[in-house]
Amino acid sequence: MIKNIFPNFNFAKIPFVSFGAGKIKELVKISQKFGRNCILLTGKSSLKKSKILDKILLDFESAKIKIYHEIIENEPSPVLIDNIVNKYRDLNIELIIGIGGGSVLDSGKAVSAMLKEKESVENFLEDVGTKTPSGNKIPYIAVPTTSGTGSEATKNAVLSKVGKNGYKKSLRHDNYIPDYAIIDPELIISCPSNITASCGLDAFSQLLESYVSTNANPLTDTLAITGISLIIENLKGAVFQGFNDINIRAKMAYASFLSGITLANAGLGIVHGFASSIGGMYEIPHGVICGTLLASANRITIELLKKEPMQDDKLNYLKKFAYVGWLFENFNKKYDKLNSNEFLSLLEIIRINSLFTNKGEILKYIDKLLENLEEWIKIFKMKRLSELNIKEQDFDIIASNTSSKNNPVKLSKDEIIKILKERY
Amino acid sequence: MIKNIFPNFNFAKIPFVSFGAGKIKELVKISQKFGRNCILLTGKSSLKKSKILDKILLDFESAKIKIYHEIIENEPSPVLIDNIVNKYRDLNIELIIGIGGGSVLDSGKAVSAMLKEKESVENFLEDVGTKTPSGNKIPYIAVPTTSGTGSEATKNAVLSKVGKNGYKKSLRHDNYIPDYAIIDPELIISCPSNITASCGLDAFSQLLESYVSTNANPLTDTLAITGISLIIENLKGAVFQGFNDINIRAKMAYASFLSGITLANAGLGIVHGFASSIGGMYEIPHGVICGTLLASANRITIELLKKEPMQDDKLNYLKKFAYVGWLFENFNKKYDKLNSNEFLSLLEIIRINSLFTNKGEILKYIDKLLENLEEWIKIFKMKRLSELNIKEQDFDIIASNTSSKNNPVKLSKDEIIKILKERY
Repeated sequence: MIKNIFPNFNFAKIPFVSFGAGKIKELVKISQKFGRNCILLTGKSSLKKSKILDKILLDFESAKIKIYHEIIENEPSPVLIDNIVNKYRDLNIELIIGIGGGSVLDSGKAVSAMLKEKESVENFLEDVGTKTPSGNKIPYIAVPTTSGTGSEATKNAVLSKVGKNGYKKSLRHDNYIPDYAIIDPELIISCPSNITASCGLDAFSQLLESYVSTNANPLTDTLAITGISLIIENLKGAVFQGFNDINIRAKMAYASFLSGITLANAGLGIVHGFASSIGGMYEIPHGVICGTLLASANRITIELLKKEPMQDDKLNYLKKFAYVGWLFENFNKKYDKLNSNEFLSLLEIIRINSLFTNKGEILKYIDKLLENLEEWIKIFKMKRLSELNIKEQDFDIIASNTSSKNNPVKLSKDEIIKILKERY
Repeated sequence: MIKNIFPNFNFAKIPFVSFGAGKIKELVKISQKFGRNCILLTGKSSLKKSKILDKILLDFESAKIKIYHEIIENEPSPVLIDNIVNKYRDLNIELIIGIGGGSVLDSGKAVSAMLKEKESVENFLEDVGTKTPSGNKIPYIAVPTTSGTGSEATKNAVLSKVGKNGYKKSLRHDNYIPDYAIIDPELIISCPSNITASCGLDAFSQLLESYVSTNANPLTDTLAITGISLIIENLKGAVFQGFNDINIRAKMAYASFLSGITLANAGLGIVHGFASSIGGMYEIPHGVICGTLLASANRITIELLKKEPMQDDKLNYLKKFAYVGWLFENFNKKYDKLNSNEFLSLLEIIRINSLFTNKGEILKYIDKLLENLEEWIKIFKMKRLSELNIKEQDFDIIASNTSSKNNPVKLSKDEIIKILKERY
């Protein structure tokens, strides 16, 4: 029996959010509140192609806001951040704007923070540097063009130095949550299918991991399950037939934003442990690592949970996994066409306490979850680790560098290697 | 058929939150982050009785934080705020702490803002003054001791000048959301039954009004329905047999906090229109006004909605009311075996398209809602307007001063008077 005790928790700020199609038009007006001397970071091509960037730059010119434009080509490194910061340190920058995917948004977050510090950002990275960031920063507006990282709602920027002794670590402070997020699905509609898929799997992974996190709380649970349901409903559509449907893109963007809130407050699990260890050694996009490992990592986690006594908190985690499996089975099919009879049978299921009164039911829906995750990985053509040119001889060092984070069970090195082998 | 279009919306910040039994112990440590020169506002007696105040003051002394202690006796007026501000303006105050009910929390919010302005707060009140607040303020920590206003999560402070030409109006700015909220159900457990009841009805009213608000959005809907369900489950318990059950108090405190978030982002309706107009003329506690009018005001609103063509957005509001009625019928009875957060957010997603497929179902559950609200008002012994010494000859002026705010239908003066008469 699960104890129904309302838990203690902390919850961090979220940014002001302006959400919806066309909201990018508000950027100049919002920027004016902060100042007239601004660094704009964007990705290398997508915005340019869509001509939205030209329009934005013209608008800033009309508003007499000085824009220093920097292009972020890849996932950001400490050197990249230091270079940008050193270039602009004496220019009295009043605002940072990042418009792009996770790399751009994290770069903007780091630049906004480091313009207020005197040392290299490397000194402030978790597990790498020895300094604690002050939390001072230049105001930052984050504008996502993918539905994946949720960086527009998080307090950390992930930086990596890729290579044999590489790392992928966070610059983190509660104050680094962006001051403003403009989430406009029109900016996301041109996102290509493969990126939509890997970013969507990343967002899903963030939601699932924070949902079953050891640090989850009632508020993150509510938001996580909402986001999970939206991605179950809309990811296939966003990748395939509905890629230019603004409504589907909006729901994915909202789910991704929720994933940022939940990960910032509840933490993440083993999938993102791999994102850090593998991402520090290989130049593979973050979402691709998360996507390819999603099913295997959760299978091993679930196997370990099943070995625990089926009671108390471990049972609760299994029920949560089962619940997501249940959502897949019931919402994947197109729940907006459900009629009231179907709805009542759903309620009937819910009334069974909830949902799962016996081990058999729990295990059944956990299997459904894993089946559905595997189907996603298949239809979205996520490459196996070997196809991503990850070397088997690196498994040992990868495993040593992989943290279980807030995973519902801690994994041993052998268990971590088992996941890698399964997905090789 | 309801269109399933994902809407545009804005969402404001929420404070850092530390939630749970015993969290008040963190107050001194959190305060130290902000400074050593601090105004503490509390109510007149409850904290003192519980000896918690003595402990807090001793802790501050040990930590060498200078505390200027002000006691707020009643709902705050502009004169009260100006007096406090003038007293402390030159003392280099670095932090404001409010520990109390809505009156105390709103006073703290106003003081923290007005210490940065040079004029009377009256000049900055909505519909009263002509000035726009700068948004500058001294950092503010809000610690509720009732589960009612949700002021710890809102961006406005309500001030009133009570009398014939009185008013009850808001000082409002996005920046006025408290920097930190400590929500500790142990501080709430000593709240007397009658105040628990009226505050609970206020919180419920805030959640219901923001849920059916013309300005509601998907995020406020998710949070509102979670809070509504928690209050349906726990209000009777908190008032009667479970008043010293920390778990019930925690759920009420969480619901109240959610009500602050939803009202700050979605706005309120006709019940809070009355809270403003009646509260400006009579010294009646805010929660008592909201509680006594909850059923009548919603009945008239629903009657007007029913007269509209049953389609599009009007139908959507009726479905939302019906959904709350459905929750009363299904969750009132004991849903504490459910992991309520998760299921409710699921239900919220299913709701619009599936729960009610015909007019009969909608009307049936709307009736259930109104029956349940009336039962609450009866068992909680909410006084009628006549028992609160409101004069019938004031109805005309009250009606003239009552705004429909974001009510799903706008009410005419006659319709507003009809509510007052029904509840006289």
